[in-house]
Amino acid sequence: MALIDKLVVCGVGLIGGSFALALRRAGLVRRIVGIGRSEASLARALALGVIDEASADWASALDGADFVLLSPPVGQMDAVMAAMAPHLAPGTVVTDAGSTKRDVIEAIYRHLSGHLPHVVPAHPIAGAETSGVEAAFASLYQGRNVVVTPLPENEPAAILRVREAWEACGGVIHEMPPQEHDRVFAAVSHLPHLLAFGLVHDLAGRANAEQLFGFAASGFRDFTRIAGSHPEMWRDICIANRQALLAELDQYLAELAYLRALLLSGDGDRLEQLFAEARQARNAWAEQFANNSANPASKSE
Amino acid sequence: MALIDKLVVCGVGLIGGSFALALRRAGLVRRIVGIGRSEASLARALALGVIDEASADWASALDGADFVLLSPPVGQMDAVMAAMAPHLAPGTVVTDAGSTKRDVIEAIYRHLSGHLPHVVPAHPIAGAETSGVEAAFASLYQGRNVVVTPLPENEPAAILRVREAWEACGGVIHEMPPQEHDRVFAAVSHLPHLLAFGLVHDLAGRANAEQLFGFAASGFRDFTRIAGSHPEMWRDICIANRQALLAELDQYLAELAYLRALLLSGDGDRLEQLFAEARQARNAWAEQFANNSANPASKSE
Repeated sequence: MALIDKLVVCGVGLIGGSFALALRRAGLVRRIVGIGRSEASLARALALGVIDEASADWASALDGADFVLLSPPVGQMDAVMAAMAPHLAPGTVVTDAGSTKRDVIEAIYRHLSGHLPHVVPAHPIAGAETSGVEAAFASLYQGRNVVVTPLPENEPAAILRVREAWEACGGVIHEMPPQEHDRVFAAVSHLPHLLAFGLVHDLAGRANAEQLFGFAASGFRDFTRIAGSHPEMWRDICIANRQALLAELDQYLAELAYLRALLLSGDGDRLEQLFAEARQARNAWAEQFANNSANPASKSE
Repeated sequence: MALIDKLVVCGVGLIGGSFALALRRAGLVRRIVGIGRSEASLARALALGVIDEASADWASALDGADFVLLSPPVGQMDAVMAAMAPHLAPGTVVTDAGSTKRDVIEAIYRHLSGHLPHVVPAHPIAGAETSGVEAAFASLYQGRNVVVTPLPENEPAAILRVREAWEACGGVIHEMPPQEHDRVFAAVSHLPHLLAFGLVHDLAGRANAEQLFGFAASGFRDFTRIAGSHPEMWRDICIANRQALLAELDQYLAELAYLRALLLSGDGDRLEQLFAEARQARNAWAEQFANNSANPASKSE
């Protein structure tokens, strides 16, 4: 992969910071400029050596930049693109790390329509339980899936450049259409988060909430771990991907209606059969996942 | 606590075996007899020194017994009580470790109606991810909640004996009515299990199941950990406690209907508010739970 002369990271938190650290460790970047809505966060990124320079305006940040990573909360993506658009040079390659893709792509068409050949959307599947630049580390993406969802207008060279950058971070690259990406992650990530937030919210609002939590044990702890995730980030994801998420929720509601019918009729045989199928699928997956996640950062999401 | 001269454990798995090991370590039991439907399992319990004797029939097992723990799968409880009833001496104290209480108590009234003063139902909140006597260990109940749900007919001395036995195992004793027990655990344990089994079963049945599982990450892993639980055990629990579980499921379905409405209307503010409340409640609980679970067995359920 060719050296990046000037990398701009917008939103230097766990995701953006780890991308910067990984490329620096790989010796693939000469200078890293951070930009974002929080001055304090940029100052910490500078103090930690994650970036070489904190920039207050897009004009200077993008001056001479050859690669840009957009890693703000997805709800900020629209404003970020609007602000950067006037200062983006024709050849600069842009990618993002948004957890949803359809909404990011809508923002790209809205604000970066003159740059479509070089704007290549992506989503690294890593990080979430911790946040902030202090949590960033160079091997976050080691062995992790990175989904790239190219636009029809993308230049093959730009797609390659984005793939190579994520590969240099240790990522395992997959390409798929953005709609497919959003459906897949609605099912395996966004819906579970919604369900966990919902259960805790339901119980916390009960008159006997204290008693209930007093008897909750380790099964509850693991099931609800993702209900400790960042509310703003998950609001943005759920809103951005709400079409796919609603479809997944409705399918899950149908599953619950079936389970409800089995309970109501006391159909232990079918219930056991369903539990056994779920257990078998879950354990087979978990074994494979553990083997694939042999890196020490496997606590990340 | 007075010494138990002859302890009978019916169902010598993780739960029954750990009870036996804990009382033996505390020096509070002279002889331990195991009984159960699996000869192989009893032979292993004997080989491991968890029991002193494996008994093939209730008549000899109960001869001279002063304390009995019933820890078979809850679905076996009815048959177990029917089999033991003719051989139970008037003064023998009986307790159980069933995860549900209303159904166990129904079986008690059905089969042990002549022994009500000395049959004291209980539920230790520990163990589940592993099973079998090989997984048993003496400190399983250390610092764990044990819910005792006395019958109106119980003799105070029998309740005290059962409380003392679980306390000697390290348990923290709570008394509550059985209906309340079943409602509490439907909410914080049985419903989460049902939800996790349901999600995995839903996804495993999709045409693109392989793709979906391929992109599932650590959030999914933790959320679905309890879907790896034992199908027969959870069938029994769900069927036995289906009234309370249906009530909890319906309340949760109402929560999901609310979340669905927020998604449909794109109400990010209320969604974020709900997520923030859930996160706050979850993290406050998790901190307290971690402090209370300072024993090395905290992987248990």
